Amino acid sequence: MLKRLKQEVLEANLDLPKYGLVTFTWGNVSGIDRERGLVVIKPSGVPYEKLKLDDLVVVDLDGNKVEGELKPSSDAPTHLVLYKAFAGIGGIVHTHSPWATSWAQAGRPIPALGTTHADYFYGEIPVTRAMTRAEIENGYEHETGNVIVERFKGLDPSRIPGVLVNSHAPFNWGKDPHEAVHNAVVLEEVAKMALHTFALNPGAGPMDQALLDKHFLRKHGAGAYYGQTK
Amino acid sequence: MLKRLKQEVLEANLDLPKYGLVTFTWGNVSGIDRERGLVVIKPSGVPYEKLKLDDLVVVDLDGNKVEGELKPSSDAPTHLVLYKAFAGIGGIVHTHSPWATSWAQAGRPIPALGTTHADYFYGEIPVTRAMTRAEIENGYEHETGNVIVERFKGLDPSRIPGVLVNSHAPFNWGKDPHEAVHNAVVLEEVAKMALHTFALNPGAGPMDQALLDKHFLRKHGAGAYYGQTK
Amino acid sequence: MLKRLKQEVLEANLDLPKYGLVTFTWGNVSGIDRERGLVVIKPSGVPYEKLKLDDLVVVDLDGNKVEGELKPSSDAPTHLVLYKAFAGIGGIVHTHSPWATSWAQAGRPIPALGTTHADYFYGEIPVTRAMTRAEIENGYEHETGNVIVERFKGLDPSRIPGVLVNSHAPFNWGKDPHEAVHNAVVLEEVAKMALHTFALNPGAGPMDQALLDKHFLRKHGAGAYYGQTK
Amino acid sequence: MLKRLKQEVLEANLDLPKYGLVTFTWGNVSGIDRERGLVVIKPSGVPYEKLKLDDLVVVDLDGNKVEGELKPSSDAPTHLVLYKAFAGIGGIVHTHSPWATSWAQAGRPIPALGTTHADYFYGEIPVTRAMTRAEIENGYEHETGNVIVERFKGLDPSRIPGVLVNSHAPFNWGKDPHEAVHNAVVLEEVAKMALHTFALNPGAGPMDQALLDKHFLRKHGAGAYYGQTK
Repeated sequence: MLKRLKQEVLEANLDLPKYGLVTFTWGNVSGIDRERGLVVIKPSGVPYEKLKLDDLVVVDLDGNKVEGELKPSSDAPTHLVLYKAFAGIGGIVHTHSPWATSWAQAGRPIPALGTTHADYFYGEIPVTRAMTRAEIENGYEHETGNVIVERFKGLDPSRIPGVLVNSHAPFNWGKDPHEAVHNAVVLEEVAKMALHTFALNPGAGPMDQALLDKHFLRKHGAGAYYGQTK
Repeated sequence: MLKRLKQEVLEANLDLPKYGLVTFTWGNVSGIDRERGLVVIKPSGVPYEKLKLDDLVVVDLDGNKVEGELKPSSDAPTHLVLYKAFAGIGGIVHTHSPWATSWAQAGRPIPALGTTHADYFYGEIPVTRAMTRAEIENGYEHETGNVIVERFKGLDPSRIPGVLVNSHAPFNWGKDPHEAVHNAVVLEEVAKMALHTFALNPGAGPMDQALLDKHFLRKHGAGAYYGQTK
Repeated sequence: MLKRLKQEVLEANLDLPKYGLVTFTWGNVSGIDRERGLVVIKPSGVPYEKLKLDDLVVVDLDGNKVEGELKPSSDAPTHLVLYKAFAGIGGIVHTHSPWATSWAQAGRPIPALGTTHADYFYGEIPVTRAMTRAEIENGYEHETGNVIVERFKGLDPSRIPGVLVNSHAPFNWGKDPHEAVHNAVVLEEVAKMALHTFALNPGAGPMDQALLDKHFLRKHGAGAYYGQTK
Repeated sequence: MLKRLKQEVLEANLDLPKYGLVTFTWGNVSGIDRERGLVVIKPSGVPYEKLKLDDLVVVDLDGNKVEGELKPSSDAPTHLVLYKAFAGIGGIVHTHSPWATSWAQAGRPIPALGTTHADYFYGEIPVTRAMTRAEIENGYEHETGNVIVERFKGLDPSRIPGVLVNSHAPFNWGKDPHEAVHNAVVLEEVAKMALHTFALNPGAGPMDQALLDKHFLRKHGAGAYYGQTK
């Protein structure tokens, strides 16, 4: 069942250590089959070097396990909330990649400071509000999804494919698991450069809106002309 | 004698260069057999690439050599003080890993700033007081252990598995040598992210206590639900 | 056609990931045959690990494709402006290398702070002015070349082989594609060290002019005495 | 001639890229045969990956070439001044390793902030004064040696095995070429940690003198007890 999606999710998970985004088991990728309403996700606490196709867990959108012997990632409820709220996404990744996590711990959004950012994120990468004690103590991972969704009120998740969870770490998404990881790599690179930009110029403002438009839209949407496939 | 423990200690020592925690010979791991009261430790000044099982040294808790041709690590007396004071630990590691050492040199404890920290350390990672001239000149390595133990008065070493020795570098521990090294890797990652967090937000405070509780306790203790084995 | 130049351009492109200058496809190298007025350049959006000789695109100085099945890099118009304006250069490279890009995002030129810089750049590495809305919206990549050329009014591009494009990233050049990439590696190293120099000494001024002269001129021009070939 | 010394110098030069101390050809190691008064040094501008035993150049202490087809490193006159002034040293290394170079560019000495420093450098790592125009224009590389020697008036080069040349980069030395490179690796690590220490605590003072004594003297001199050979 879901052979191809499982293969995609496995490869996307294995890309996390390859791109230096994870230490030990600090990350997980999932993918969704929208027609069947089923999500494939990494099992909890399994090291990447031992991860095999059959270890992956299939759950439905209510979190019921449909296939797999292992427990799904403890972050699965967060993924499910996002899949329900963001209809256009097909893959989600969570890591504690160090540069992005530093911003999350600082509670600061990452403004768009240059074209690298603008090529992938159409504006500031937001940070969620601090969670309440009640949210933390009751259904914590589910509520983590809810504060992300709350933060995206008025934002388009297909144009801002990632978020910093306050005092925690980033989540990224994309049209499939591969693109979600791609966006996580970009976020980490952008987070590193933004920190250094502020070290050089504490008053660095957001980039010019026209330049942001230009770079985002030459890669995304109807008028795109970057790459070979459009 | 102590074949299995030696193998564990050897592997844990070899993990130090693998995880980028050491330059040259700047680190050592030990493990204890609690029933026999014997400690296996790296010999002093031997490069990791040449380290073999038979090079490991066995000492009793008073520091008498029981087996081995080489001299034990010059830090052995520190390890012994910790094994005597912290009954629950089975392995100890000392490195000069650069991010954690920078905090030790700055004389600052690392506050819990996010969930990565909270997953392993149940609160601030403390720094010892400066040692006195008398402590430095008489039984220095033994007294290094004593200032660590002094600092942990009122703290639970099983929930704060590491410390920064002032003007020096970190020590970590765990239920066995492998877990001690695991905690040293986490400390280094946490130290790096905390430095960058303060660069972004000099007023970053400790994280919310409820979130610290949630993350530490979902991985440790009776109510843990992270991973496959609980 | 242009077999040797294509080989040079291919190798120079493959050097970008080798030297850690690029993430994904964020970079491109070109080379020019001055006699024929033809430029060989990387195709748009093709991953380096799949790049082959036949993927390279040949364009004339007006941007007309002369050979190749793929679309040239979207940055090709910038390269063409530079080849027309800077008669002495034979290769151009564009990357988003993270340290140099951080300076570009900060809108700060990199002053000559030491001999590493002076060995390759005869003075400050300049940053372009912000582009106007009109420049961004009409012929953006072409106008990017124009603001670089504008910034080099009164500067000698053979002695300052690189520039930071404001809110964007660096361009470098050289007598051939290989030297252009060499200069991009130097820029990245110099950018990193300059950031750390200012962290240590916010008032660090430009280096002594006599020392700048000495280092640049012992490697470049008639009186050079560094290396084996002069 | 000098077969064994050449082998040592070759290996020490090849250790520079291995330890990440050099980019391109930015470094050189030499060794001296004190009895014959002959120095073996890297040729100028030869890439490390092509460096062979027969490329090494032999010069006497006045800089006359005694053997070798290539030109010696342009920094050879600096090495010769140091060999003449510091009778106890047997090897010298010069690199532009990025962390140490950042301190040199900032014109700041590196204070002893912790035991990693104290294990190898018995106090602050000094920075030379800026060179005069006359020194730069006449016999620059020779005068570079002279300002180092001037800076060491009252210091013991066997206990402070390195220096930062102002606006330039570090030189290190040791009892042989291998130890010189070892000290260069330590300097780079110490420079990185000291920068981060000051980021965390701008008022970090030099470490306690008793702790400096303890660490330096447990590894060096008559009372040393670190390692296996003493």
